[in-house]
Amino acid sequence: MLAAAALAAQLAQVRDAALSGGYAWKELAHLSHNIGPRLSGSPQAAKAVEYVASELRELGADVTLEKCMVPHWVRGVETAELVTYPGQAPGMPQKVALTALGGSVATPDEGVTAPVVVVRSMDELAALGAKKVRGKIVVFVFKFDERKAQAGRAGDAYGEAVYYRARGASAAARLGAVASIIRSAGGADFRLPHTGGVDYSSDTAKIPAGAASAEDAEMIADLAAQGEVTMHLTLTPRWLPDAESYNVIADIKGSEHPEQVVVVSGHLDSWDLGTGSIDDGAGVAQAMQAIWAIKKLGLKPKRTLRFVAWMNEENGNRGGKAYAADHKKDAADHVLVLESDNGPGHALGLKAHMTPEAIALLKPAQDALAPIGANVIQRIDEDSEADIGRMEDLGVPGAGLYVDGRKYFDYHHTAADTLDKVDPRELQEGAATMAVFAWAAANMPAVLPR
Amino acid sequence: MLAAAALAAQLAQVRDAALSGGYAWKELAHLSHNIGPRLSGSPQAAKAVEYVASELRELGADVTLEKCMVPHWVRGVETAELVTYPGQAPGMPQKVALTALGGSVATPDEGVTAPVVVVRSMDELAALGAKKVRGKIVVFVFKFDERKAQAGRAGDAYGEAVYYRARGASAAARLGAVASIIRSAGGADFRLPHTGGVDYSSDTAKIPAGAASAEDAEMIADLAAQGEVTMHLTLTPRWLPDAESYNVIADIKGSEHPEQVVVVSGHLDSWDLGTGSIDDGAGVAQAMQAIWAIKKLGLKPKRTLRFVAWMNEENGNRGGKAYAADHKKDAADHVLVLESDNGPGHALGLKAHMTPEAIALLKPAQDALAPIGANVIQRIDEDSEADIGRMEDLGVPGAGLYVDGRKYFDYHHTAADTLDKVDPRELQEGAATMAVFAWAAANMPAVLPR
Repeated sequence: MLAAAALAAQLAQVRDAALSGGYAWKELAHLSHNIGPRLSGSPQAAKAVEYVASELRELGADVTLEKCMVPHWVRGVETAELVTYPGQAPGMPQKVALTALGGSVATPDEGVTAPVVVVRSMDELAALGAKKVRGKIVVFVFKFDERKAQAGRAGDAYGEAVYYRARGASAAARLGAVASIIRSAGGADFRLPHTGGVDYSSDTAKIPAGAASAEDAEMIADLAAQGEVTMHLTLTPRWLPDAESYNVIADIKGSEHPEQVVVVSGHLDSWDLGTGSIDDGAGVAQAMQAIWAIKKLGLKPKRTLRFVAWMNEENGNRGGKAYAADHKKDAADHVLVLESDNGPGHALGLKAHMTPEAIALLKPAQDALAPIGANVIQRIDEDSEADIGRMEDLGVPGAGLYVDGRKYFDYHHTAADTLDKVDPRELQEGAATMAVFAWAAANMPAVLPR
Repeated sequence: MLAAAALAAQLAQVRDAALSGGYAWKELAHLSHNIGPRLSGSPQAAKAVEYVASELRELGADVTLEKCMVPHWVRGVETAELVTYPGQAPGMPQKVALTALGGSVATPDEGVTAPVVVVRSMDELAALGAKKVRGKIVVFVFKFDERKAQAGRAGDAYGEAVYYRARGASAAARLGAVASIIRSAGGADFRLPHTGGVDYSSDTAKIPAGAASAEDAEMIADLAAQGEVTMHLTLTPRWLPDAESYNVIADIKGSEHPEQVVVVSGHLDSWDLGTGSIDDGAGVAQAMQAIWAIKKLGLKPKRTLRFVAWMNEENGNRGGKAYAADHKKDAADHVLVLESDNGPGHALGLKAHMTPEAIALLKPAQDALAPIGANVIQRIDEDSEADIGRMEDLGVPGAGLYVDGRKYFDYHHTAADTLDKVDPRELQEGAATMAVFAWAAANMPAVLPR
């Protein structure tokens, strides 16, 4: 058999094995239900490291734990009420459904009470100036564009809204605000606040930062347009000392070029409101399923096939940074790094940070994935995923799984990121996509050009 | 002009007026945002009575308040965690998103901790027997049938699930359970617990009763199938003495038969988790819009057209009962009672508790509503709506608005029952439907037969 035909046959085998069985689902259920939310530094994150390492050992992979120190932020009380607003029943507050943004500083334990000022954009904030902002709680009511998300540009919609999540608090603080609340960056139909990191600037005070549900943000905007609105806000998160944690690394050693590495991965940490099933238990489970499928087939890759469960993607990227620092010396031997971190929607293929020549070499994998519709490769200039971006910066070809993301931001970073949001078949499709591209890169005659 | 043609022209006028303007929306926004949740006995419910009465006076209607004493139940703390479960990170609980059912008794302030037993049906509970239930928290995992709801039988799906909400706690108590948790009776995608009344039997102890989100109920079922699960449950609602409250009644007196009455209505009270926008602020606003439209047109009905905002539909039906008691003597003069309490979805027509002969007489209204698709009359044998059921029991023809209810139970009795769930156009369609049927009944030559 010609080498090309042999590879094609193997890729079909890998695809079908990764599309079968309940392994990925069982692993994801365990991460979601038995372990639960896995914010960096938490006992659950530590338990997840131990658990995934043990599962990979059981599959017969060579497991190592790669140390990284991670931020340790712990959510506290998070409540808010409008205490005065036009037309209210005497003394009766309106509850505001909200959550602290990751990394937020705390209010006093008894909370802070201040008038609210609503802005729709940074420009509106700037136009108000310090005189109208000082001493107030700024509410940024920037709308996550659900239509854009529905039309296949979820990442763009998210990026626009995240600008306020990241930068809003410091922009408000510069004008003397006492706290900052955003309209959640994500879907808007079920009164769910979406958390995610706030990015304080070093040039101004850190003020408590939260995200209200879309419904609550719009209610505040409606009431503030009618007259004075005062909010009582209590957020009591805490920062603890950095904690020791780990990337979980598990290798199937290459038979011909053990020093050359192809990575399949997802991130093991999650935000703490839900059970981290779609972000990113699913990605970890898919990468595990890729290893499981290849082990089940008894195949031996020519190059080393490496599983990585990254730590701390959500609030620091310490795992991705540690890996890049530790592996700078062998970056040239990293043939391809893949990650699934866009949710477990139907797989379309890859968003690839690599040269057109490298993409052309992946044609056999595309052909094998055409029957499940996962054969699109969209070339991108920016880094593909946070965890693997540092390796991409070192010149390593990398790609994120490209999936149907229309529903992803409905649940992303919310309490509703739970197991039931994952379709078992779609979970397998993503696993098969990662497995097939990885197998191709690990077994092609040549390495991917840079 | 023939009488029939004149009526048809008026009905078209009434329809178009009720389909226009922002009155209903403005009223609903005020009830939702400026007043907020309106559980019976609350200051917000009292404020809503005062507000709606004042708005109807401003429209020029004759307003009376009809007294009723209402239950006064106040929600407290409501938290739950799984404190032991298979595979857990040492000492780390899994949070359970849940809410107290309306009317639930409280746990001790510090909560109750007990092993969990999961059942999928009353039969499974009975099969366990007292020996396996005593001292435990029973979790009823009966699935709300979303496909049935999507297929146009939302009420049936709801009724099946509500059986467990109403009866589960007492069934568990009879076998010695210490608390009862149901899988929420409603949509299941956003980790939203759905409240609603529990119906304790007098033959057994009252035990604390809650509803977990669908996600949490399924997680508990998964973990309990693997090994022992222990829950810490804290519910601290309180019962206060009955409070004085009111149905708001507003009449446009009939020019020929002022003693004969046609009612348009919705209920003013709501559950307390959301802002009561779809259940049933929308119904109240639609009935208000019907009155507004007729006043705007300067029309004078032959029979009295009566607006009613019912009190206490959700947890006692005291308003509906008081009205039936107060109006038993003039029940024979009630020509038709209408209520909108199935959410503000696209109007299809009426679900009518009346004779085929009465339905036949409503043909002119159907014809006027055909252009907006709201011309279906489905005859039903059971009472149409809780508030007007007592009048129907006295022989009065009655009907509930028949609407597209596919989304209703996604939000019903949850924190996400908020203004944004209402489409302004659909709100008007329901108003027009109620207005047209009411105008027909108020102006036809004959009263509806019984």
